[in-house]
Amino acid sequence: MEVRVGLIGYKFMGKAHSNAWGQVNRFFKTGARAVMRAVCGRDENAVRGFAENWGWQSVETDWRRLVSRPDIDVVDIATPNDSHAMIAIEAARQGKAILCEKPLARSLKEALTMLAAVRKYKVANMVWHNYRRIPALQLCRRIVKEGRLGIIRHIRAVYLQDWIQDPKFPLVWRLKGDIAGSGAHGDINAHILDATRFITGSEPVEVCAHFETFIKERPVGAMTGGLGAKAGRGKGRVTVDDAVIALARMSNGAIATYEASRFANGRKNGWGFEINGSKGSIKFEFERMNELQFYDASDPAHLRGFRRILVTEPGQHEYISAWWPPGHIIGYEHTFTNQVADFLTGYLAKKPLSPDFLDNTRNQAALEAMAVSSQKRRWVRVQRVN
Amino acid sequence: MEVRVGLIGYKFMGKAHSNAWGQVNRFFKTGARAVMRAVCGRDENAVRGFAENWGWQSVETDWRRLVSRPDIDVVDIATPNDSHAMIAIEAARQGKAILCEKPLARSLKEALTMLAAVRKYKVANMVWHNYRRIPALQLCRRIVKEGRLGIIRHIRAVYLQDWIQDPKFPLVWRLKGDIAGSGAHGDINAHILDATRFITGSEPVEVCAHFETFIKERPVGAMTGGLGAKAGRGKGRVTVDDAVIALARMSNGAIATYEASRFANGRKNGWGFEINGSKGSIKFEFERMNELQFYDASDPAHLRGFRRILVTEPGQHEYISAWWPPGHIIGYEHTFTNQVADFLTGYLAKKPLSPDFLDNTRNQAALEAMAVSSQKRRWVRVQRVN
Amino acid sequence: MEVRVGLIGYKFMGKAHSNAWGQVNRFFKTGARAVMRAVCGRDENAVRGFAENWGWQSVETDWRRLVSRPDIDVVDIATPNDSHAMIAIEAARQGKAILCEKPLARSLKEALTMLAAVRKYKVANMVWHNYRRIPALQLCRRIVKEGRLGIIRHIRAVYLQDWIQDPKFPLVWRLKGDIAGSGAHGDINAHILDATRFITGSEPVEVCAHFETFIKERPVGAMTGGLGAKAGRGKGRVTVDDAVIALARMSNGAIATYEASRFANGRKNGWGFEINGSKGSIKFEFERMNELQFYDASDPAHLRGFRRILVTEPGQHEYISAWWPPGHIIGYEHTFTNQVADFLTGYLAKKPLSPDFLDNTRNQAALEAMAVSSQKRRWVRVQRVN
Amino acid sequence: MEVRVGLIGYKFMGKAHSNAWGQVNRFFKTGARAVMRAVCGRDENAVRGFAENWGWQSVETDWRRLVSRPDIDVVDIATPNDSHAMIAIEAARQGKAILCEKPLARSLKEALTMLAAVRKYKVANMVWHNYRRIPALQLCRRIVKEGRLGIIRHIRAVYLQDWIQDPKFPLVWRLKGDIAGSGAHGDINAHILDATRFITGSEPVEVCAHFETFIKERPVGAMTGGLGAKAGRGKGRVTVDDAVIALARMSNGAIATYEASRFANGRKNGWGFEINGSKGSIKFEFERMNELQFYDASDPAHLRGFRRILVTEPGQHEYISAWWPPGHIIGYEHTFTNQVADFLTGYLAKKPLSPDFLDNTRNQAALEAMAVSSQKRRWVRVQRVN
Repeated sequence: MEVRVGLIGYKFMGKAHSNAWGQVNRFFKTGARAVMRAVCGRDENAVRGFAENWGWQSVETDWRRLVSRPDIDVVDIATPNDSHAMIAIEAARQGKAILCEKPLARSLKEALTMLAAVRKYKVANMVWHNYRRIPALQLCRRIVKEGRLGIIRHIRAVYLQDWIQDPKFPLVWRLKGDIAGSGAHGDINAHILDATRFITGSEPVEVCAHFETFIKERPVGAMTGGLGAKAGRGKGRVTVDDAVIALARMSNGAIATYEASRFANGRKNGWGFEINGSKGSIKFEFERMNELQFYDASDPAHLRGFRRILVTEPGQHEYISAWWPPGHIIGYEHTFTNQVADFLTGYLAKKPLSPDFLDNTRNQAALEAMAVSSQKRRWVRVQRVN
Repeated sequence: MEVRVGLIGYKFMGKAHSNAWGQVNRFFKTGARAVMRAVCGRDENAVRGFAENWGWQSVETDWRRLVSRPDIDVVDIATPNDSHAMIAIEAARQGKAILCEKPLARSLKEALTMLAAVRKYKVANMVWHNYRRIPALQLCRRIVKEGRLGIIRHIRAVYLQDWIQDPKFPLVWRLKGDIAGSGAHGDINAHILDATRFITGSEPVEVCAHFETFIKERPVGAMTGGLGAKAGRGKGRVTVDDAVIALARMSNGAIATYEASRFANGRKNGWGFEINGSKGSIKFEFERMNELQFYDASDPAHLRGFRRILVTEPGQHEYISAWWPPGHIIGYEHTFTNQVADFLTGYLAKKPLSPDFLDNTRNQAALEAMAVSSQKRRWVRVQRVN
Repeated sequence: MEVRVGLIGYKFMGKAHSNAWGQVNRFFKTGARAVMRAVCGRDENAVRGFAENWGWQSVETDWRRLVSRPDIDVVDIATPNDSHAMIAIEAARQGKAILCEKPLARSLKEALTMLAAVRKYKVANMVWHNYRRIPALQLCRRIVKEGRLGIIRHIRAVYLQDWIQDPKFPLVWRLKGDIAGSGAHGDINAHILDATRFITGSEPVEVCAHFETFIKERPVGAMTGGLGAKAGRGKGRVTVDDAVIALARMSNGAIATYEASRFANGRKNGWGFEINGSKGSIKFEFERMNELQFYDASDPAHLRGFRRILVTEPGQHEYISAWWPPGHIIGYEHTFTNQVADFLTGYLAKKPLSPDFLDNTRNQAALEAMAVSSQKRRWVRVQRVN
Repeated sequence: MEVRVGLIGYKFMGKAHSNAWGQVNRFFKTGARAVMRAVCGRDENAVRGFAENWGWQSVETDWRRLVSRPDIDVVDIATPNDSHAMIAIEAARQGKAILCEKPLARSLKEALTMLAAVRKYKVANMVWHNYRRIPALQLCRRIVKEGRLGIIRHIRAVYLQDWIQDPKFPLVWRLKGDIAGSGAHGDINAHILDATRFITGSEPVEVCAHFETFIKERPVGAMTGGLGAKAGRGKGRVTVDDAVIALARMSNGAIATYEASRFANGRKNGWGFEINGSKGSIKFEFERMNELQFYDASDPAHLRGFRRILVTEPGQHEYISAWWPPGHIIGYEHTFTNQVADFLTGYLAKKPLSPDFLDNTRNQAALEAMAVSSQKRRWVRVQRVN
């Protein structure tokens, strides 16, 4: 069976998605064959070059045209955050399956409209939380399900980068509230919140957060994205957070801390977490994403310790059979290919996708409660989404 | 010059202090010679055995007698938290120098009475924050003073233990609010708060915290202290926190997270921190206390990275000249001996001791604001102490 | 410009090479475009499925036909070791550029005939030492060239796996001397020898080695390769080494140790090295291939330490600009794509390739001297190859 | 019971031993009480100051007098290597128990005379291989005895320092063959050889080694010992090895590599080992001496990994009950105190001491075979000692 994909957006995430759609057929046998039908971008020349490079069969310059094409089964949304809702709702109306970049929306309200749309039109829907497809995270989920952590007491998670810590770094779109919705919060705090919700199967019920913008004004820069942006002339106001720190009480009784920053000098894509339970603990850091630390309190007392599991065993660890022999590590891009493989499998079987818009709207609800909390300077309950 | 010491308390901390008083003369040349004059405890037989073992020249069973002895220059307080104030105030009245275990007091109010006493009687005073005497922490302080971190943006610190995570662990004095004042908060959160205040030279100005007691009732146990306690019959109420998570805004503009727990499975004495500044970052974990991680953003761009400094170089790193050659690591107990060496040097020179009661009362003020915040479910300003 | 490739062999290495030829055009702009013209294997059905999956435009079942096709510019040899020489010599005769898997040959003599052939027919030639294309290894080479290590004193390298440590693992072709030439020695010791020669620019001049075969007989298995092989009936003799340990004196005055084993329990693809020089040191381990440890003795004395460089900075570290942002790590397969990019660049510019057959024949000379030494139980001089 | 000790030598090792004799009574209950009766050195003033500092009750300036004193039960030899034999033989003749620093002797022949003496006079005898008393090494031994490693295949051990890597470092006694016997070989290779023999219970049967002296001449320096020595005038010949690399075949069928160097830049006291067996593996590095890495191949397949055991659990790990709570790490000096505790226990019970002169003469035999091998450029069998 062929699954015909249309991609909207062709910058950083467009590249990562294109690679995934291209690689998935080669490494995975899902029963469905991804066909890279069309890619859409406003600059025709640029998008044409992109299409040629990545093997997209055609191009569009108007996303509405792409979304309405009858030869497209799946719309993959990789645009800046302010267009996610608009595109996703129209795609749903057109009966397309949807894969949307995170953060799903700029606000909970926006996310709820998107959720309503996919429900109304009953289309397959999924959010690009590619990090769920790190084999080590799948192993975390399995360890929890196997009961190896017992009652979960503590979650602590950080997402630390340093790419805007220089005050001369320009005012890119990710630093503008109207386009991005938020800064480190929606971009990277969203990831660790999702990862820990996924692993523990629990939701934040009450949160308290503080948002900080260390550098209030920056040189006006080309609106071209994240890293490598060049500064222009004049200064503009930064209207998102540079960093966020947060506390949470979880539905399973655990307590949690979250921190996301683009000002953590020396930390490049330094995200990770530790989860402590009554029977064991796990620790993970992305920059060593092929490893998981696991502490099993049921080991003999003289031999207890965090063990470093190299999560690269074919047959034992999720996705690895598709890739390379033990110890031959995979990298960042594989998480996208793994997600596409799961998408194809689920789409074919008409099974729930993870995370779908419902799941991710819950993530959004927690993010929003944190934003409110930061302004109100007190704990805030997270709105329940069902 | 001889400095005659009287110690009150002879359990875990009594052992650590005794060892320090015994070792300091052998390893350090401070100009002052510590004389272990007397030790005090209520159980005469036990304290006599203790004195013999550690070389205390005499014993007392009433702390008031010890404090009033004319042949005592320094009173070292190593008792449970509810007697610190009473003893310290009397010792001050008697004109004795005071070394008091942390937490200084069970409340800010209590700490302020102690501060008033040492000020009124103008006695040398110091709090046992022995962790300040880890060579790596001294190096942190130096790195900050040398300007190598630049503007500090982030502090994140944890103190993770797991010794009471079993619900069958008994109700020892450290779990009773009236004696201990608080649980993980005063016992170990106090340490990481002190360490990061010491290193950065900044104070929390506003805090938000959550206290959690996971296990509300425990078997009634012998009131003998911490680890190794045996359970008795019946159950009693735990009246302190098992864990605390907290956010803080610092006086230097940084934002901070603190977490202390006795329920972090697999973590034994797992405390540490990371501090990120505009020019560099540092990371430390106690279980590898002879190491410090330092990131210098001024390194050549292709060579930047966190470097693991083995903080064991005589002549380069604080205290090491007294101990062993490079790479021949020291341990927990050395931090006490190092503190005693600093005490003797400062006492002899009539120089300020670090931390003194004033410094530590500020620690107490931050701890108290966190406790209040946990109850009020909102951010709370920290009372300024001058 | 198009560069038309013909691949011979389609198992583990065939997969890795195919992926590289497919990915290189998408991620790198070398000026040359790899065209996947033909793949060759004896089982037509199997090779046809392989070709379809990976995008090879045609198939052959006789390698001689592939090598003689006029529409092939480059012959990529990914067959078992006993056919390398035969194919490479014929490919040279046909004027093809050659990319040959390692070990180049089963013996130095065989390697010399291959070297003579590529010299005679003046064809571009390169050996698949893909690990040279790990960004961290390129950084090692640069650090040495920048003089940051000073006079090199020590090299110590290990390559540790455990995939045949179970005596029930079957007698695959890699365990048969007539096909494989040697065991761990040619397969993986070859890698660490090459890596350290590449980085230091020095050659072993005298070596002493010991080869060990722990399990002398194994179940007869399907001759299908390495991992995942299934056992058959009966037993056969293992005629290669399971492990090798070796000492070497290097041309630059350094002394070295090498160890390669398939019996190191818990080590999956655990290869790495440490190199100590008069001005600094470097350390690397493959399972964390995105990191390099570097010690700079010219750092201030209180701040010296091995720093963990995350070798993922676009613009700073080799190949990374083609891939992902800082901290978004790459994996095993990228080393092949990087090598292909270097091949295309060098082929286009008619520049020397690294390692070429000459370079690798020197590797083979050292390997052979080790094999001789193990039998003679004494130090053996390495034959010079020019 | 009192055990009266006489110490000969008061430099680096004298300090370490004195501390151990002083601390053992305070922390351990062995049934025997160490009495620090006398210390001997040639410089009366210096030794008197030393005695006062460390609590030695009397001083001697002639070792023969100390050895013959009737109020001495144990002679502790902490002098340079050229006097070990002479003193030990006389001490044996006088019926004293002996604790001798390592290396026991400068040659196997010398060691054999010492072994003969303690056998003839039937005195308790022990060598200061204090590293056997690292709790992690005791745990290694236990893991082997519990059968958790299975058949041992590989031993690899290194001892890396850098303290003489500067060519201007002076010609101290440790660099003179007539006094020291050898360089890195007897000083530190001796340690890792002993440690791995102790853990595995196996002996090298055949060895091949290479000794290297990188810097052949050095400034003449004060003959005062190791680190911190000051240079004098003129140059003298270095007559010991700077580094040694070695291979070994062990009596249990394992193969081993050993390396010891004082030229490994960035490595301070960097010794450690890895041992691989058919059922598991262990890894240790001294600079993190409170940790042991253990891989258990019998763990569930998806959860296998090297676990970092924090070897600080009272009741679970050797010696720890005497010291501090879990996670409160110990350091270098504790290994001496632990050894003294074991000595007192064994001496009291008239049980074998570990290692005794017999055990250590076997170490010496292996060291000597390595030295011979380096000269003969071939494998050499190790002389059996019974």
